[in-house]
Order: sequence, then C-alpha cells, then structure tokens
Amino acid sequence: MEKINIGLVGFGTVGQALYQVINNSRNVHAEIKKVCVRSLEKPRSIEVPQGLLTTNVDEIVDDADINLVVEVIDQADAAFEIVSRAMRAGKNVVSGNKAMIAKHLTELLDIQKETGRALLYDASSCGSIPVIRNLEEYYDNDLLLEVKGILNGSSNYILSRVFDHGEDYADALARAQKLGFAESNPTQDICGFDSLNKLVIITLHAIGVYVAPADVFVYGIEHLTAADIQYAREKGMKIKLVAQVVKFGEETFTMFVMPEFVAPGRYIYSVDDEYNGVVIRGECYDRQFMFGKGAGGFPTASSLLSDIMALRHDYRYEYKKTAFSPRPEYVTDIALKIYARYSTTDLHTLLPWQSIDEEYRSASHRYVVGEILISDLYKARTALAADDVFLCNFPRFFAERDN
Amino acid sequence: MEKINIGLVGFGTVGQALYQVINNSRNVHAEIKKVCVRSLEKPRSIEVPQGLLTTNVDEIVDDADINLVVEVIDQADAAFEIVSRAMRAGKNVVSGNKAMIAKHLTELLDIQKETGRALLYDASSCGSIPVIRNLEEYYDNDLLLEVKGILNGSSNYILSRVFDHGEDYADALARAQKLGFAESNPTQDICGFDSLNKLVIITLHAIGVYVAPADVFVYGIEHLTAADIQYAREKGMKIKLVAQVVKFGEETFTMFVMPEFVAPGRYIYSVDDEYNGVVIRGECYDRQFMFGKGAGGFPTASSLLSDIMALRHDYRYEYKKTAFSPRPEYVTDIALKIYARYSTTDLHTLLPWQSIDEEYRSASHRYVVGEILISDLYKARTALAADDVFLCNFPRFFAERDN
Repeated sequence: MEKINIGLVGFGTVGQALYQVINNSRNVHAEIKKVCVRSLEKPRSIEVPQGLLTTNVDEIVDDADINLVVEVIDQADAAFEIVSRAMRAGKNVVSGNKAMIAKHLTELLDIQKETGRALLYDASSCGSIPVIRNLEEYYDNDLLLEVKGILNGSSNYILSRVFDHGEDYADALARAQKLGFAESNPTQDICGFDSLNKLVIITLHAIGVYVAPADVFVYGIEHLTAADIQYAREKGMKIKLVAQVVKFGEETFTMFVMPEFVAPGRYIYSVDDEYNGVVIRGECYDRQFMFGKGAGGFPTASSLLSDIMALRHDYRYEYKKTAFSPRPEYVTDIALKIYARYSTTDLHTLLPWQSIDEEYRSASHRYVVGEILISDLYKARTALAADDVFLCNFPRFFAERDN
Repeated sequence: MEKINIGLVGFGTVGQALYQVINNSRNVHAEIKKVCVRSLEKPRSIEVPQGLLTTNVDEIVDDADINLVVEVIDQADAAFEIVSRAMRAGKNVVSGNKAMIAKHLTELLDIQKETGRALLYDASSCGSIPVIRNLEEYYDNDLLLEVKGILNGSSNYILSRVFDHGEDYADALARAQKLGFAESNPTQDICGFDSLNKLVIITLHAIGVYVAPADVFVYGIEHLTAADIQYAREKGMKIKLVAQVVKFGEETFTMFVMPEFVAPGRYIYSVDDEYNGVVIRGECYDRQFMFGKGAGGFPTASSLLSDIMALRHDYRYEYKKTAFSPRPEYVTDIALKIYARYSTTDLHTLLPWQSIDEEYRSASHRYVVGEILISDLYKARTALAADDVFLCNFPRFFAERDN
C-alpha cells in the first residue's frame, strides 16, 4: 500500500483539527505535506513547520508526490475548481464541502469516471455520522423507504436553546454565534440551505437520483416567533428543522426541508444542541437511528480521516443505486399538513389550500392549519419568505408508527 | 459482475425471511439455488419450489454453481464445519451465527487467509445495525476508546417490560417467550452469553484483539428480583444488560457483560423492547449512537442481504486493527463499583472488596455496594451464579459525561 501524501486545502477549524489528528495518530500512515491557505499572516492556534503553508494551490495540484487532496474551504465554486483540477492531475480527493458537492454532483460523477480517481465526502453530511458510507454500502438495496433527520447542528442548537432551555430565539442565536456554531451571517444554517445541500447528497446515495438544490422546497427557522413557540409548547411538541426524502412505492419520491413539530417519543425529539440525528427507514429493518456530533472541527476531522483511510484501501463510491431499475421519479404534488402563521401577508388567500382544518386570529397574528401541495409551497416561495410568515410541518408520512 | 447463486443453510425465521426478501427484490441479482434443512417434513409458512430443499449439505458445498453460502443455523460446531468446508470449496460465506463466530474467530481468520475466500457476518451482531462494518471501515483508526451497548433484544425486551411497563420479571419472561423473543431455554439471552459472543466479535473489529468468551466475566439478569427492581426505581434508574469494551490509553483494555444501572439522559436509557443500541466513543467524534432492531427474521435478513451485496463487490473484512501497533492488552485488574444483593451466600465476606460504600440488611435480603476488581468477580463466578445473588454495575468509566 502506497503511503499517503496529503495536500490540504483550507486551514480553518476543520483543517487544523485534521492536521492535529493525523500528526497524533500512530496508525494512519499518512502525512500532510502541504497546506494551502488564503493568508500566511493570519494568526493560528497551532504551530506548523516552516514551508508547510502556501498560498498557491498549484504547489499542491502540480506536486507529483502528493497523491491525495483534502479540500475543506468555504467557497463552493473555488472548491469545485480545485477538486476537479486535482482529480484531473491524478489525485484522489476527500472533501467536506456540502455546498460544492450538492451543486456539482453530476459533474463530479463524470470527472470520477473520466479520471478514474475517487472523490469521498462523508464529512459533508452530518459531520461524524457515517451516513453516506452506510447508505452506499449497507443500505445498498431497494429496501430503503425514507431518510429523515436533523442535518444542521447550528440551527438545532438554536432550537434546542429555545425549546429545552427556555431562551428567546434572539438570545439563542446570539449564543450560537458566540460559540462559533453559527456564522456571523448564519443564512446557510438557519434558512435551511445547509440542510438542503446535505439532503441532496443523501438522496443520491439513498435512492440513486440527483435533484438540484434549486428544485427543492426549503424553509428555515429565521422567522420563528414567540407565538410559534407557544403554539408548539401548548401541544407538548418541539420545533426542529427537518430534512427528509420519502419514497412512495417504486415509482415516486419527494424531498423537502422544513421546520416540523416533533412529539416526544420520536427519535429526533431528543437530538439536542449541536447534535445531528438521522432516521433511515426500510422495508425489513423498519428503522435505524444514527446520532452524533454534526459539526465542529474534530468530529468533522474524524470523518475526513475515515475517508482518507478508505482511499488507502482503494475504496470508492460505486453509486450503485443510480443503476437501479426503476429509479423513482421526483414529485412535488404531495399534500403536507402545515401550520402557517402570518400577520400582513394573507396566507389564507395567497395559498391554494387543499383544505383548512383550523384558523386563528388575534391582534398580533393569525394562523391557518391545513393541507397544501409541496409544489404550491414551492411556487409561492418568494411570498413565503416574508418577515411576517412562519411555516411548520405536521409529520404525516408513515405517521401511524412515526418515529 | 458474476451472478450470485446462493446455497442457504438453515431455514428458520431468518432463513425464510431472507428467502422472501431476495425473491421480492428487483435489484439484488442473486438467487437462492438450494436450501439445506434438517427435515423436509417440517411444516413451513412459505411455499418453495420443488427440489429447492435438501437435507444433505453436500448438495450445497459440492455444487460448483453455488458461489455463496449463507449459514443461519443454531448449532455453533455444526456451523463451523459447514462454513469451513464451504470456504475451502472456494465459496464466500455470509453468517449470522454469533456463537460460532465468537468461538472460532481465530480459525476463521486463518481459513480466510488460506482460501482467499471472504466471510462476512454483520448480521451476527445487533441484527440490522451495521456495527461490524462501521467499526471495520469507518472507525478504522486508533481514535476509538469504547464500545458499549445493549446487544441482546430478548433480555432487553424483558427488562423493558419490567421497568417501562411495570410487569413482574416472571410475567415479562413468559411474554417474551410467547412472542418468540426468548427461546424456551433462554439461557443464552438472559444469562448474557449471547451479548458476550457479540462483544467478542465487536472487540476484534473495534481494537484488533481477540479474547475468547471463556476469559470474559459475564453476568446475566436471571436472578433479578423485586428487591433489585425497587432499588433501581428508587434511584430513578433502569437496569439494562450492558456489554462493553473500554480502552485505557494505548496499553490496556477491559471488557465484560453485566447488568448496569442506567440513568435517564444516557443514550441507552431509551433503548426499549427488543431494540439494540450501541454507543461508540472516540477521541475526536466523542460519541456516536446507533439504534435499531436487534433481532427478528426480517431485520436480520436485511443485514444478511447487505453482506451478500457487499460480496458482489468483492468486499471483505481486512481486520486492519489486528495489524495496529501497539495493540492494547486485555486486563481485568480494574475496579468496578457494583451493587451485590444476596441472602444466604454471604457476598460480604466471600468477595475481596476493595472498599465498601453501603451495606443493607433486612429479613428478606442483604446488599453491599462497593468496589471490586473484575478479576475477583471472574474468580468468584461459580459462587456468584447462586440463585440468591444478583449483581449490577454502576457505570464509572468516563462518568463525568457518561452517555
């Protein structure tokens, strides 16, 4: 087995954690030879040997000694360019970049075929939880019916502060930012885009179909108010930001990201703080639940390390389910039962409700509980992004034994 | 890729479930060509084509068309003979037989090396939960510190009836037997031997060391009484049958199976009924929790199917950690804090306690809470098997943030 010489692109929290883990491990048989950073001057908490850092990614891509590139930068497009170049230069790649992967999955499959190189990215979905690898290898048959989970640690931390610790939403967000769970611009996390990127990746490995992020209805927790919190609490439920892909028989499936009312007793009810939890449901095994740290430098580094070790044993994703027949078709004419709270945007008349179960109005706000198609939510997504609106899903698929 | 022709040995609950799953799947590309049973006359709930069943295992082992043997019988020694013969005849093997594998692991490694054939057995540990595969592939580095879990569905079902549903122990056992969770002779399950077999297999894949089942202290729940249940309840805890392997630094590890007091908030507290749950703890990822059905025909069949599909892609266990350096040494001079209840067997004087925290006596029973070495428990195991004795462990490793 060839020794692994790593070129690391990105030296933030995750990159530095990986550097420490590899240097402290006795059985990894890998070495980080070069690290590409944006600035050599930036102060860093760990010391590195002289000459390790560079600002020129060519020093990694063009170095024939480097046989593996690990990419952990923030920018999706820059990352895609580096990853493509590295594979075309004959290197295997490990990436934790969910935005890049979700956006470019189809091209990344092609580049893997074209170059014969492997790209592994288990760290991109749910940090330390081995979701992708298990979907690809262990749930590699057509028994799988549903994958549903809390895929974003930052938004879950905020919701957990609100529902488990009684904090205000604003205080919880501020605390999350202070602890480094949420970015100073936390749009990706709290608007659901980060969960969506992970869901797109998971869906390809779960049922073999790629759906572009732009084609999926996504709704976040940024407009959650005290009224919504009170509504959930009065019903003994928490609100969680949930991503899900659900198969209906062999023919169709749907997927979306939305806040959801979660009752006690369901697996994801107890996924608190910055943790992630994923429920995999299938025909024979019923339900599997995987739970672990979804974010943070060291949990993500441990996942990158697993992928690095797997490449040492020539592991690659086979994308077996993309060859399955029939592959189900993505549909959105599926009715959800939702709670829609508003004040000035009149959701009652704006949305083409299939049916309405409840209506409420007070001096401060109104809400409707009723059935609506996912496709209609998607069409109305601009109006639904208004500041005075909040939507939350009542889970109903497989509700008879919902966990 | 070669088509998989399966010879199935054993046609009980699991074998029949596997037969149905493979026949109903469109993407498995495998066929069960022959099934070896003990009796052709035994009534079965599913219909099979004429000529499928045989009582002569040679018809499988000697059939050159059959390239994969799936072994799901009860007997450890007969299974070992069949599995060895099949591998020597050039066939890959999938087995769910934990007793056989735990007992013969070393020989099975040698036969795999000698024949170049692969033996997969994820179904042997925790039914549908992919524990072995994840330990082997994903946690394939030296970050792993501890694996701890509820590995036996039948005993957990009984304890769950007692602690979650307020039933008597005797009623709970009878109900488990009626539902088919516990055998008519449930010794393997409730005395902890089944958990122990799984722990032995898990330990090899977790830290690369094989310890024979006979060298491990195992204590079951067969002598649990109302007094013990009351003791746990008064402290707000449940009793669970827990198997664990724990590393102490790089040099040593210990392992044992024992009832344990489990406080609310710990992951395994909510593993109820026939479910299994495994906590994997490591240096970077902290804790991962996997939860799913640990027993039953279809959950186990789904696991067998994953292994069958993996063989189609030439997957094999590499037993990577057996090559790690240093491999930790198995030690038992480790102090546990335990509750020891007795009436006529005087455990207070019988056992060489390191220290005693509590003593209690009443007309019906006595108990001691104190520290004792695992090695001393092992030495006293015959006396501790007396009808009037029950032991339960207070978890203490990593207790500061114990989950």
